[in-house]
Order: sequence, then structure tokens, then C-alpha cells
Amino acid sequence: MTLVSQTDAELAARLFDAVAAVSGEGPGMSRESFGEGEDRAMAVIAAIAAELGFACEIDAYSNLWMRLPDDDRNAPPVVIGSHLDSVPHGGNFDGLAGVVAGMLVLARYRGRAHAAPPLRVLALRGEESAWYGKAYIGSLALLGQLPASALDMPHRSGTGTLGDALKRTGLDLEAIRAGRALVKPGDIAAYLELHIEQGPVMTARGWPVTAVTGIRGNLRHNVVRCIGEAGHSGAVPRWLRKDAVLAVAELLSRMDEHWRVLLQMGMDLVMTSGIFTTAPESHAVSVIPGEVRFSYEIRSQDAATMERFYDLTREECRSIEAARGVRFEFTSRIDTAPAAMDAGWIGRFGEAAQRIGLPLEQIPSGAGHDAAVFANAGIPAAMLFVRNEHGSHNPDEAMEIADFITGVDVLAEAVAGGDQASVRTQE
Amino acid sequence: MTLVSQTDAELAARLFDAVAAVSGEGPGMSRESFGEGEDRAMAVIAAIAAELGFACEIDAYSNLWMRLPDDDRNAPPVVIGSHLDSVPHGGNFDGLAGVVAGMLVLARYRGRAHAAPPLRVLALRGEESAWYGKAYIGSLALLGQLPASALDMPHRSGTGTLGDALKRTGLDLEAIRAGRALVKPGDIAAYLELHIEQGPVMTARGWPVTAVTGIRGNLRHNVVRCIGEAGHSGAVPRWLRKDAVLAVAELLSRMDEHWRVLLQMGMDLVMTSGIFTTAPESHAVSVIPGEVRFSYEIRSQDAATMERFYDLTREECRSIEAARGVRFEFTSRIDTAPAAMDAGWIGRFGEAAQRIGLPLEQIPSGAGHDAAVFANAGIPAAMLFVRNEHGSHNPDEAMEIADFITGVDVLAEAVAGGDQASVRTQE
Repeated sequence: MTLVSQTDAELAARLFDAVAAVSGEGPGMSRESFGEGEDRAMAVIAAIAAELGFACEIDAYSNLWMRLPDDDRNAPPVVIGSHLDSVPHGGNFDGLAGVVAGMLVLARYRGRAHAAPPLRVLALRGEESAWYGKAYIGSLALLGQLPASALDMPHRSGTGTLGDALKRTGLDLEAIRAGRALVKPGDIAAYLELHIEQGPVMTARGWPVTAVTGIRGNLRHNVVRCIGEAGHSGAVPRWLRKDAVLAVAELLSRMDEHWRVLLQMGMDLVMTSGIFTTAPESHAVSVIPGEVRFSYEIRSQDAATMERFYDLTREECRSIEAARGVRFEFTSRIDTAPAAMDAGWIGRFGEAAQRIGLPLEQIPSGAGHDAAVFANAGIPAAMLFVRNEHGSHNPDEAMEIADFITGVDVLAEAVAGGDQASVRTQE
Repeated sequence: MTLVSQTDAELAARLFDAVAAVSGEGPGMSRESFGEGEDRAMAVIAAIAAELGFACEIDAYSNLWMRLPDDDRNAPPVVIGSHLDSVPHGGNFDGLAGVVAGMLVLARYRGRAHAAPPLRVLALRGEESAWYGKAYIGSLALLGQLPASALDMPHRSGTGTLGDALKRTGLDLEAIRAGRALVKPGDIAAYLELHIEQGPVMTARGWPVTAVTGIRGNLRHNVVRCIGEAGHSGAVPRWLRKDAVLAVAELLSRMDEHWRVLLQMGMDLVMTSGIFTTAPESHAVSVIPGEVRFSYEIRSQDAATMERFYDLTREECRSIEAARGVRFEFTSRIDTAPAAMDAGWIGRFGEAAQRIGLPLEQIPSGAGHDAAVFANAGIPAAMLFVRNEHGSHNPDEAMEIADFITGVDVLAEAVAGGDQASVRTQE
């Protein structure tokens, strides 16, 4: 029994290649949110969908919906979707893989739509925050949740705003501002998304496909300042120093150790200080650093874990302030809620995998996804990850098509709910 | 018994004010090494010295020597000196205080030179590295130790070299290149330097004057790179991360703790990482930092302590490399030898202070001084520090004249070797 169908692999390759061909100059893929690259990707997808015999519809917020033309049922459908945009010079699979996966599942039911539950494939726009500093634009708008203030967010180039781009794409800005939802929670039975893993766990563990347990929320301070006191590096003894670098080094080392212990206790947590810098205008080899600016980010699937780790961070700051005579200043805190994936669908993924002889491990998603928006709006949402090397958001994404087809098999099998013949026989 | 002589204080104030008046536009003092500000300061000092009845001589390397005209002895003299230059927009006391102190001591022997050992006051040029990246130019040249390569060092503005400036000041570049010494170790009985403290210890402890035990050497890497691996801050779990910020934070925290313990054990040591930065072109809040560049400096009065602490640093780097999958890359190491101050003169300072009822504490000098050049050339050298707030190399240096006069009293008393009347009675 081979899980990889030659026909599926060929269709997948055709779809990936056709979109790559219109994704701008290299290196990598540039499919700008509500920009030309995304427009062209959507046009290519819609053209092949029509060729495959799917009925296509662009909604009022310019997302693309695909269905089988003989599916005339009114029951809330299972939606398989993801996004078409990419970061600048990103990879071809982040987002696109989920749309292609949906199309492959839909293709298996051509001519016999009633053999499956009502199905829709959704190609969303604007998931990447790289262009306007705002993520999940398409899905938030669809659910009436895009804040009006987001329309004023500037393009990464500094020229133009998200509102300008939405208008150019033909969206009704008044409807967006009014929070008019095109989809309400009861309208959709489930939102399913297949995505490449953006971390190295599955490659390290040898897992081709996994079910996602939840999508981590995050808690950020983009800038924390630690203010000490500059001084002559030779002339000030240790007991009179207020060294900002050593203070922040101690803070991060303490939190790193707490992190290690909490993982040992089974908690879900990551912590990152991606930006750390002394003052470029005044720092010097022979000057005790009087100021450090650093970013601080905590992510977890569990809001309470984030909150407690955050409280611990602030407590450690107070202790270091008292011991070292420095001061920590925190800019505004930015919160994104974690999203739990639907337990029923995680179970269905596991059963489906078992039926096709695949052990299905579960992992959390550290990165955010449109699925979190649907889940937090009360729609049962679930995700499959496909093994991928070199992370994402770079041209070196490396997903094997064989792994991808295995993911499509699990997805199709789960949608079918046990009727293998209906989904695994190719036409 | 008052230690502050009105006459001394008046003369000191006159000298400080006269030099300040020709030290360029504010803020602070700008007496450029081998430049106009230093020239003008030397001219003002020479003019007042002549008025005071001193014999002045400019040597072949354009340093100013002052003596009493009736001192015709040939025995090696005790030299009291310091430098006239300042950093750009520095304070008025760093350097100048030592020259003024020498002049005040010399003034006390006017008309009776033979009541003291042979005395010379030396106003050196070019001690500050701020102008040409090279420190102790005047004293190194005097002792035949200025490396020929230093002549090519560029001015901080990028225009012109140290060689150009020396030539313009009238120095014989061939003699400098040939390492021709104007002073050999046996020519000078001792080099004594009074200087403001450049750290906060004396203010914190309430010590007006201290004897300097030694001048710390330093060991530097201007740039150390820690190379880890960038990755998605949400998607990579702790066990697969190679976080350069956490690696360097751990290194500095470990070294900080070792430092604390070594101080406890009585060792002399300071450690500074004045520059610490993630890669500005690629760092981001949501990216695991893949690279950190930081400076690393160790100072101590004891070369072996520096060397051992350095070895410990490299060992901790190896341990962190193994544990965290990062790599440390060290650029070339720069060494400056520590200098011990002469025990005999430290003792004489202590006895002198005792005679005038002042407890004299001892502290190391973290910053470098011309005295280190003399000491390392084999000339007995010693220093007194005078209390000063706000450090040095900035316009906010704050030395009280009363403290300064106390320092002059200790210096004069030590030179006299117990004959109080000879040095503390004003004319």
C-alpha cells in the first residue's frame, strides 16, 4: 500500500510550480499581502481550480472560495484553507501548501460530492505581518474582527497604508470599519489547515505529519530599557557599578533557568530576547554600559503559564534593580491569546492516521496561524503540520512532496470519517 | 592647624583659571594633544612659572620642565609631573592638577632650593588617546619608547596623523623613529604624579587624598562574536535552540559571579562588556538571535590575575559552546601591562600624611597614567589621587580646591621627608 499517489503528487507539483512562477523576483517568493504577488497567485489558483472543475467565488473581502459544482447542500461546510501571501523573499510552501492540500482533497470527490460532508477550500489573503505589521488580516476581516485602526498601519516601505491596499484590491473599507462579518461562527462546521512546520522538531524526530494541539499565544514587550550608570571601565570598582549589560545578562540567565525548570515540569513555554543592544551613540570598550535596550517575548499554549512567567520576570527585575542599582522600564505590553485546537478533530486526525498505518504525534504550533482566529471566534479548528527543513520565512523552506501527500491523505481520511474508498481512490 | 593655605589656594585657582581660559570653546576643556589647546596651556603655564621665578626649559620633544634657578645640583632629581592635554570637551583637572601641584611644591622652596632634594616639575604633552588613538605619547617619546608605527596613527577627524602633529610642534621625527630617549632610568630619582580620581570610590568613602598602589593593566578583545542560529521565536523549542543572546548572557553572568568571588578573595579585578549588540540588519522581536557581538575587557594591577581570569573566560566559553551549540570567535587580544607604584614612595606618602594628621588610604588606579610609563621603564614612580566627583573625561569633573591643597601638602611633606617647616611655611 503506497500512500503517495503519483496523480496527487503531479497535481501538487503543478500547483506549487505555477504559483512560484508568478511570485516575483528571487531570491524566494514575494507574494505581498493585498499586493500584486498575492493577486497573481490567486488568479493562478482560480484558473487551475476551474480547469479541475471546481466552482470558484471571490467574497466581498476578496478571499477565494472553491467548491464542487454538484455540492448543493446548505449545511455548514468543513472549510479547508490557508493563505496565499508570503513574507518578502520567503518560501513557496508557507500558506500555499494548505490551499493546495484543500484542492487535492476536493479533487478526490469530483463527480461525487455527496460522498463527503459539504466541503469548501478557502484561499485567504494577508496572513503575514511582514508587509503592514498586522497578521491575519484576511481571516480577521472575514470574521468581522479586523480593528479599524489597522487600516492606518503603514506599509513596510513607509509609503501607503493597509487601507490603501485594501481599497486598491476592491474591499469595502466602510464594511471593514463597521466590523461586518462575512462568516459567523455557526456558518462553518470546522476550519482545517495544513501547514509546514516552521521549527525543526519534526525533522529532528523523524515525523512526516503531526496534529497540532494548539497555537501558542504570545506576550511581548518590543522594547525594555535597563538604565544603569556609565562610568570609566577601569576606575569604578564592582560595588559602585550600575552595569546595565550585567543586569540584563543576569535577568535573562535567571529566566532561562526558570524556563528550563518549567519545561521539566511539563509546561509549554518559549522565551526570546531577539534584540539586545547597548547605546550605539555612546557605548565604548572602556565605558561601563549605562543603558541596554532589549526585546522580550514569551509564548505558550497556556495563557496562565505566560502570565505567571511574566510575573516572575517582573519580580526578577525588581530583585535585580535592588541588587544592582539599575532600573527597568517596560514599554506597552502586547498580548495575543493562545488558541486551542478542537479536540474532536485532533481525535479524527489520529484515527485517520491510524487507518492508513501512520503514527500521528501531536505538537504545539509556536507560530501563529489563521486557524487561531477561527478557533478564538468559536469555530472548531484544527491543523496538521508537515515536516519541513530550514524553518520558514526564508527561501530555503524544504518540504518533501511525499510528506505533503501523506498530510493530504490524513486530512482527506479525517474528512471522510472512515470511508477510505471514498477518498483514497484516484479517478 | 589648617592644611589649606590661602596663598596656595589662590595660586592654584589662578593657574587653573588661566589655563581654562585658553582651552577652547565649551562645553568643557579641549586641549588637543600636540595641538593648539595644549600649546596655549603650556604657554600660560610657562608665563606664570617665569613670574614665580622658576627657570623653564622646553625639551627636544617639546615637554616643559621647570626648576628653581638656584638649584644647581647634578644629582638625579625628583620629578613631579603630569600632562597638559585633555580629551575633547573634557574637564579642567585631569592632568593639569598634577602640573599645578608640582608648581605649588616648587614655589614653597623659592629662595632656598637646597632645603629640598633636587626638584623638577614636568608638564607632559599627549597623554590622552582620544586624539590619535594612542596614549602616553609624551612620556613614551621621552623614554625612547614611542613605536615608530604610532606616527602613522590618524587624527580622530580622519585628517592628518600623529606624525604631522609632532612635526608641526617642532619635534624631530627621526629621533622619535630611532627611539632616542631624552631621559634614561638613572637620570631621575623618582616620578611623582598627583591626579584626580576618575572613579567614585573616594567620594563614596569620604577620602580627600589617597596613595595609589598601582596602575591597572588591561586585556581587551574589542570584538568577540558569538554565533548561534537564527530561528522562529515561536516554532523552535528550547532543546533545539542556539540562542546567541542567552549564551553571552550566561557567559557574562558566570564571569560576574567569578569576579565577585575573586574580589572576596582579595584580588584586584574589574571586568566590563561595554558594547553588546545583536545584528542590527536582521534581529527582530520574533527571531531567535543568531549572533551577538560584544567587547570584553579585564583590568587588574596583577598580570597573573588578568591572565587567569582570561583563561577562565575562555574555559567558560568552551563549556557554553558545548552546552548550547554556539561558537565564540575572538578578535586579536590587546594587552597593556600593569604598573606597580614604588613601595618606598607609598610609604613616604603615608608617613607624610601621618605627620599632618591625615589618614591615607591606598587604592589602585583603574585608569592609565604617565606614571605607569615611568614605572615600567624602571623609574620609581608614585601617585596621589585627589577626591573628584562625576569621573573624568567630561566637563563635570568636580575637585574641591581644599582637597587639592591637602594633596599638595602630602606631596610636599613626602618630598621634604619630615622637615615640615621647610615645606609648609608660606613666604
